[in-house]
Parts: sequence; C-alpha cells; structure tokens
Amino acid sequence: MSKLPLIEGVLRYVKENNVSFSMPGHKGGEGFLGVPEVEEFFKNIIKADLTEVDGLDNLHNPEGVIKESLDKLSQFYNSRKSYFLVNGSTSGNLAMIFSCFNEGDKIIVERNCHRSIFNGVVLRKLRPVYIRNELIKKYNAPMSIDVEHFLCLINKNKDAKGIILTYPNYYGICTNLQLIINEAKKYNMKILVDSAHGAHFGVCEELPESALTIGADMVVMSSHKTLPSFTQTAFLHIGNNCEINMEKVDFYVSTFLSTSPSYMLMCSMDYGRYFLEEFGKETYKDLIKRANKYRNLINKLNWVHVLEEKDLINVSCCQSKYPIIDLSRFVINVQEGLSAHKLNNYLRKNKIQAEMSDGSNVILIFSPFNYEEDFKILYDALINCSTNDISERSVPIKEIYIPEARLLPYEASERKRVELNIDKALGRICALAVVPYPPGVPILNPGEVIDYNCIYMIKYYLENGISVLGINDNKITVLDS
Amino acid sequence: MSKLPLIEGVLRYVKENNVSFSMPGHKGGEGFLGVPEVEEFFKNIIKADLTEVDGLDNLHNPEGVIKESLDKLSQFYNSRKSYFLVNGSTSGNLAMIFSCFNEGDKIIVERNCHRSIFNGVVLRKLRPVYIRNELIKKYNAPMSIDVEHFLCLINKNKDAKGIILTYPNYYGICTNLQLIINEAKKYNMKILVDSAHGAHFGVCEELPESALTIGADMVVMSSHKTLPSFTQTAFLHIGNNCEINMEKVDFYVSTFLSTSPSYMLMCSMDYGRYFLEEFGKETYKDLIKRANKYRNLINKLNWVHVLEEKDLINVSCCQSKYPIIDLSRFVINVQEGLSAHKLNNYLRKNKIQAEMSDGSNVILIFSPFNYEEDFKILYDALINCSTNDISERSVPIKEIYIPEARLLPYEASERKRVELNIDKALGRICALAVVPYPPGVPILNPGEVIDYNCIYMIKYYLENGISVLGINDNKITVLDS
Ligand SMILES: Cc1ncc(COP(=O)(O)O)c(C=O)c1O
Ligand SMILES: Cc1ncc(COP(=O)(O)O)c(C=O)c1O
Repeated sequence: MSKLPLIEGVLRYVKENNVSFSMPGHKGGEGFLGVPEVEEFFKNIIKADLTEVDGLDNLHNPEGVIKESLDKLSQFYNSRKSYFLVNGSTSGNLAMIFSCFNEGDKIIVERNCHRSIFNGVVLRKLRPVYIRNELIKKYNAPMSIDVEHFLCLINKNKDAKGIILTYPNYYGICTNLQLIINEAKKYNMKILVDSAHGAHFGVCEELPESALTIGADMVVMSSHKTLPSFTQTAFLHIGNNCEINMEKVDFYVSTFLSTSPSYMLMCSMDYGRYFLEEFGKETYKDLIKRANKYRNLINKLNWVHVLEEKDLINVSCCQSKYPIIDLSRFVINVQEGLSAHKLNNYLRKNKIQAEMSDGSNVILIFSPFNYEEDFKILYDALINCSTNDISERSVPIKEIYIPEARLLPYEASERKRVELNIDKALGRICALAVVPYPPGVPILNPGEVIDYNCIYMIKYYLENGISVLGINDNKITVLDS
Repeated sequence: MSKLPLIEGVLRYVKENNVSFSMPGHKGGEGFLGVPEVEEFFKNIIKADLTEVDGLDNLHNPEGVIKESLDKLSQFYNSRKSYFLVNGSTSGNLAMIFSCFNEGDKIIVERNCHRSIFNGVVLRKLRPVYIRNELIKKYNAPMSIDVEHFLCLINKNKDAKGIILTYPNYYGICTNLQLIINEAKKYNMKILVDSAHGAHFGVCEELPESALTIGADMVVMSSHKTLPSFTQTAFLHIGNNCEINMEKVDFYVSTFLSTSPSYMLMCSMDYGRYFLEEFGKETYKDLIKRANKYRNLINKLNWVHVLEEKDLINVSCCQSKYPIIDLSRFVINVQEGLSAHKLNNYLRKNKIQAEMSDGSNVILIFSPFNYEEDFKILYDALINCSTNDISERSVPIKEIYIPEARLLPYEASERKRVELNIDKALGRICALAVVPYPPGVPILNPGEVIDYNCIYMIKYYLENGISVLGINDNKITVLDS
C-alpha cells in the first residue's frame, strides 16, 4: 500500500513524459520558460506560496500589487473591471449568475452548458428555458446552438432576464454571438458568456473575436485552459458600458472564492496576461501556422479528418464576420466504423495526451508551447495507426430533445426522491439529471417530465453501450409522488 | 511601470527573507523537506500541474489515486468520509451549510464567525440567532463564546436545526465543545464546526482534541493554515455515526469547487496528511516544548505576556477536560499603553512575519518547521524592543452586543439601499454589516435594527481611530424605507 497515493500517481504519470495536447496551457512548465527572471520565479514557485502579509495586498479588497495586476488585465481585455478567480471558471459562472439574476427569474440558456452553469441555475432558483444545440451529422456531435431555435425561443420568451451562452464550445466552435447579442439587447436581456475555452481569443486575427469585444455583459475565461497559467485559474470580466451592479459582483465573487487565495495561482495569472500582451500575437500566429500545416497533412489521410472552417459553412450558428473556429485546437473526426475513444487510447500509448474524446472525435488543445516536434509526433502516430485496431461500430447520437418542465430545477433537486425502473417512469418527474456520454447533453434535467421520447433515447444509448449518467442498473431517479 | 506587478511584489517580499510565524504551515517550503522523494517532487511541483487525464482520477468522482488518498485522510481523522477542498475552508463552510440546512431554517451561530459562514447564511436564506462572544478584559479581545449566554439561547431556541461553531478561534482558544455538543444533541441539532485553525488538533496530547473526536457532525479544517500544505487547501470531514445526507454533501462540495482542481494543491494535501500521520506526534511535541520554553522566557519581560492555559481558568467557555489552548501559537499581549499593531510593525522591520495583530495582541502561528533559531530571533527582537517606540493610548473594546433582527440577512442584502449619516439612522434597518477592527465582530448585520447602543458603539470606535468596515465618511448603509 502506498503512503502517498496521489503524489505517487502523479509521479508515475509525469515519468510517462507524454506530449501534452491537453490542459493546462503551460504544458508541463514549458510556458514559463523564455524570460529569465520569470523562469527563476517559477523555478522557486513554492516560495511564492504566501499569505496576505503587508505589501502583498488582498484579493478580496485589492489596493496594491494585486490591484495593479488586475488593472493591467482589465486594460488588456478592454473590460470595465476584471477579477482573478482562484476557483476556476466554475466560480465565475456562479458569480455571474448570482450577480445578474434573482430568484424566480426566467433565463435563456444553452442546453449544452457546463455543469457549473446548471448548478448556478439551481442555487439561484432560476427558471431556465433551453436553447437546443445543433447536431452536426458529419461529426456526430452537438456542435453549437441552433440559431433558428434560438430566434423562435427568444421571440416566445421576451420576458427573460438574460441569456447564458458557451463561446466557444469544447470543440472550439463559436456561435454567431453578434446576432444573439443584437437580439437579446432588443429586450434588455443581460448576456453572460462562459468563455472558459476562449482566454486567448482576439489576440490575432486568425482567432475568433473575444466575447467582450462583441459586446457581452459578463465574460468568464479559464486562464488555465489555454494560457500559461496554473490549473484552477480563471478571469471574470465586466463589459464596458454595461448596466451591471458592481457591488453585487464584488460580493458574489468574494463569496465563491477562498479568503486564502493562493499567490502561486494569482502570480501565474499575472504571467498569463503578460505573456498574451507581450508575445501573444506573434506566438499564436506561429502556432496556427504549424497547426494548419499539420491539419492539411492529416487531412490527406483517408480515415481521419480534422475540422476546418469550410466544414461549417452550412451550419446556421456559424454565419459570422469573425473566424468561427479556434484553429489552435484539433477536432480529429474518425471515419464511420472507427472509435475515437480507441484512437485516444492509441495516442496515449504512443505518448500523446489528448484533451478528450467523444465517440467520433478526439480533441487536442494546443498552446504556443506545442512546437513543431509535438505535431510531428502526432502526425507520425496517426500515419502508423492501424485502423483495424481502432474499429468499432459507430453509434449515431440523437438530435437534442428538450422535454416539458413541470418544476424548477431547484424544486426538484430538494424534494424526496425514489428510484424506478425506466419502463415504469413514464409521466414521472425527473429528480436527477440523465446525461449520455457522448454527447454529454442532458436528456432530462431535474423537474422535467419523463415522456416516451426520453425513455426511447435512454434505452437507445444504453443498448448501444454508451454510459448514461443518472441511470443505475436501468433505474432512474424520480420525485416521490 | 512594472509589467508583472504581482510577481515583482512577491519577489520583493521573498527577498526580505523573514522568519515566518504566519500561514501557510509549510513556512516557505521548509515543510516539504526531509523525505528525499518528496523533496524531489516539490522541487518539480510545476510538473504536477496536470489535468484529469487517465490514471489521475477525478476529484468530483474519485475512484483511483484521489480516492486512495481520501480514504487515508478519512482513516487518519477517523471520519465517516473526508473531502479535499481546493477552495479553502470557505468552500467547506458553504458546503456544510447547504448540505445540512434548508431555506428558512433557524440556526444558532457564533456572532464572531468567519465571513464565509455569514455568506453561507445569506445564500441559504437562514434565520440566524447569535451566540455572544465573551470579552476577556485582560486581553481586550472577544476570545470564545459565552457559555451562559449559549445555554440560555439554546433553551429559548430548541427548534433550531443546528449550531455552527468556530473551534478554535484565531487566538487558538477552544470552547467547551463537549458541553455544547451534549446540549445540542438533546434537541437533535446538527453540529457544524469551523475548525479552520485546527487541522493539527489531537495529534499529541498537548494539543486540544479534534472536533470530530468530540462528536461534531461536520468539520472543516484549513490544511494550509497549520500543516505542510499549499495555501487554499482544506479538508471537510463527516463524523462517524452522523445523520448527514451524503448525496447532498457530494453535490454541494462539488458545486463550490472548480471542475479543474489543481493537482499541485491536491498533492500537497496528500502530503499534509502523510506528514501528520508519520511525524505529527513527535514533531508537535518538540515544537510545543520549544514554544513553552520561549513562552516562559518572554513572560519574564514585564511589558508583554504570552497567553497561557492558566490565564483562562476563570473563563466560562474554557472549562473542559481537554487542553483549551493551542500551544503551537503565541498570543502576545502588550501592556496597556502599548500598541500591538506597532509591535507587529517593529517585528516585521526585524524580519519577523507575524500572522496578525489586533489592538492589544500579536498572533504568531507556528508549525513544526519553526526551529529553535526562529524562536531565538523572536526573543531577541522582543528583548531589544524599546517600548517607547510602540506606545499608544489603548482603546478598550466594548462587550459584544447583538441588536434586534427585523429581517433575515438575505432579505436585507437584496433590497434597495441608501446611505445615511449615522446620526440619522436610528431605528432604520442595516443593509451592510458594520464591523470595527478590532475586535472584528459585527456591531450590525444586515436586517438588524440600528438602535442607540449601536450608534454609540460605532461612534466610540470611530472617535478612537479604529477602522469600522461598513461606515464611510460617517455614513451607514440602510434599507430604503
Ligand atoms: C465550457 C466550460 N465552462 C466552464 C468550465 C468550468 O471551468 P473550471 O474547470 O475552470 O472551473 C469548463 C471546464 O471544463 C468548461 O469547459
Ligand atoms: C475561522 C476561520 N474560518 C474559515 C476561514 C476561511 O478559510 P480559507 O481562508 O481557508 O478559505 C478562515 C480563514 O481565515 C478562518 O480563520
């Protein structure tokens, strides 16, 4: 038995020495190299693990060096005010929701939002109406929101207090944010953008535009996902000229963050911003050049295809004057009959760490610290992959379906619950979300009525060997009636 | 203008090379030395900044190395289940409150609780009744809860759903937890303990007993405050044989933590537990021996006095069969006419970093990595201190007073507010807490009625040059009537 199981587990992984195409953006420390004083600092990072002593300011009431660093962050992103989050985009999503909405408010939210958004909806006791995500058949994945559905939805819900969107999604795909913001502003709705994967946006013209520039009211970004910054770090920005109650934002940001924020994490955010400001444009241009070169090479192979801009020209949400995909990541789609999970495993065996896979796609996240060598290793691995070894019957995912809601999510979350066989659950109210992976979009959220179609979809995924969160042993959790 | 203001600020501080009598418990990395493999690991800690890849488990659904580490944590503290918190005791306090109580529940809570507890009361929409803290005249500080007041309070509020206590407080003083738990259990109340400063308790008999052992239902501990673990790390424990809804705890812990928890932070918790288990007893015994030796030496000086057990024999809350003060910290009380803040500044100039000071006391937090040398430096500095340089008229703090509550804190927090001159605020309802520092205990919380005594106390502190949070330019924030 190990005495330090976690440390030893991490050491085992580090020794594998994999090429990192996953988070965090600093890629095993590569991102902190290059500026001598900075290198020295990160080499001795433990010494930076201090508490709020005189001279080191206070994150919850910044007036000194933290304030200076935050002012630079705000200037760089052109926000009214910016915050360091030491508890990930999760804390930013909670803080946005609590600052802008009150109990009982109706809001419009993507069905395919991150868990932290849904938790915020529950805690704040909101009434969500969901925008459907569009299934892109070729990729067998729900890639962005369905604009027609959105336009219809907003027309029917003009009383909604706001909209919460993901921009970009995990696949690096951006919706037509300008169109959505224009519509929402007509009805005075607040626009909250979860841009966890977009901290680098806008830094060069090859990348999509930043949600702040396009006019969002509040924007959350995980600095750890794409920038040279430690895991668990994120930014919250308030848009210029927005009617946001700043006292509330201060209060809720402070509520969802430890009163002992890590200076290691905060310093890494200081550096993440500095890096983007000083080197972002040039290094991202170079990175995208490398990525494009290898995208083209890989797309000559006949069994995989890396997503490109032109694949999306007919997708409703992607009609935009800005670039609509993040060219600093790869969505490697495998041919029908092959398994992306198996490809992912194959890559790992070949010392390549991808970010994740769904049934049909492997996602790789790059940062400027993935040099030519990394791409070559990837390309060689793909060339040497025997498709026989990764074959599997494909399971086409179903169109997103949104059942009727009878209770608010929070009401259903707090009541007495029972487990029932799926076949006996028709007409009952769901108490615990049911989510197949893939596509990772809920079939049922708490408070929604279990109808024929839900049962059909659950069975379809289960019968095809896809794991369905919220179903145990064919049982679903419903409210006790 | 600096380009990396925060990093440069931290570097400036590190170069001061101060003796650390403040958090975190690893004292600038000293705490990670001694075990060669572990040293190597922490030297390369940046490589441990990974994400949840295969083999590294998932904090939000632990089944592998994180689960193993958590099981060891649970065994060590003898809990039913334990959690790693990467967002400080703050997140644990929120999670405890949300798991145990529902909207509208009445709870009994120390007036002098940490901000995160009060934020939890607001978010969960609870009805708090407050236990007064006892002012200890000699130390001019509210040191622990007033047991008589508590007994009277619980008798009048048998319908309360639970009690929230701080154990120990910032001064290292422990209340008679056994007595309180026995009372509370009579009425089936849940006992939630904020033991942020007590992660090392129970490791040797010279230290107070752990709140879990005494029978609390849920206990939060900041591992960063006293153990060799990074800032922002904490533990949440569920007591054995407690009726706690574990599904709810899982949900709320997960809600208040980033979905991208830092492996650097988690690994440091793995180590913090390991250190206590392997070396805790012996190293704490040694530390307390050193501390006692220097406490005795310092107490021969005539202008300072370090708190000892015997100073508290007449204090109501401190009648307990367990040790009642944490001998691994110093509360250095200065004679009347001297300023503890000035002493704190003097120490810092002499390269000694204390944890904090109120008007009359400087608090030092030790860990086993404060060796003889550190204590010698402290003692020499005290011997060489000229009391003339730290003289100041003392301001005796007032007994804690709890005004009438007309609205619940959350109701008052969300309504329209205005600022009024204090003299015009009589009878109005407070919208924003009013807290003098020292003693750091609210005179008014949101929802409470501003009466003569509140106004008198606010003026008393202001006139004596004490900063009062919530008062700006003699104005107080009240509800718009
Ligand atoms: C779209 C999205 N939003 C929010 C989050 C939460 O951010 P964090 O993990 O930084 O707390 C994530 C993380 O995976 C995400 O992908
Ligand atoms: C008594 C008490 N409880 C809770 C906290 C919050 O813990 P953390 O700062 O680890 O989030 C603190 C921190 O100062 C504290 O002193």
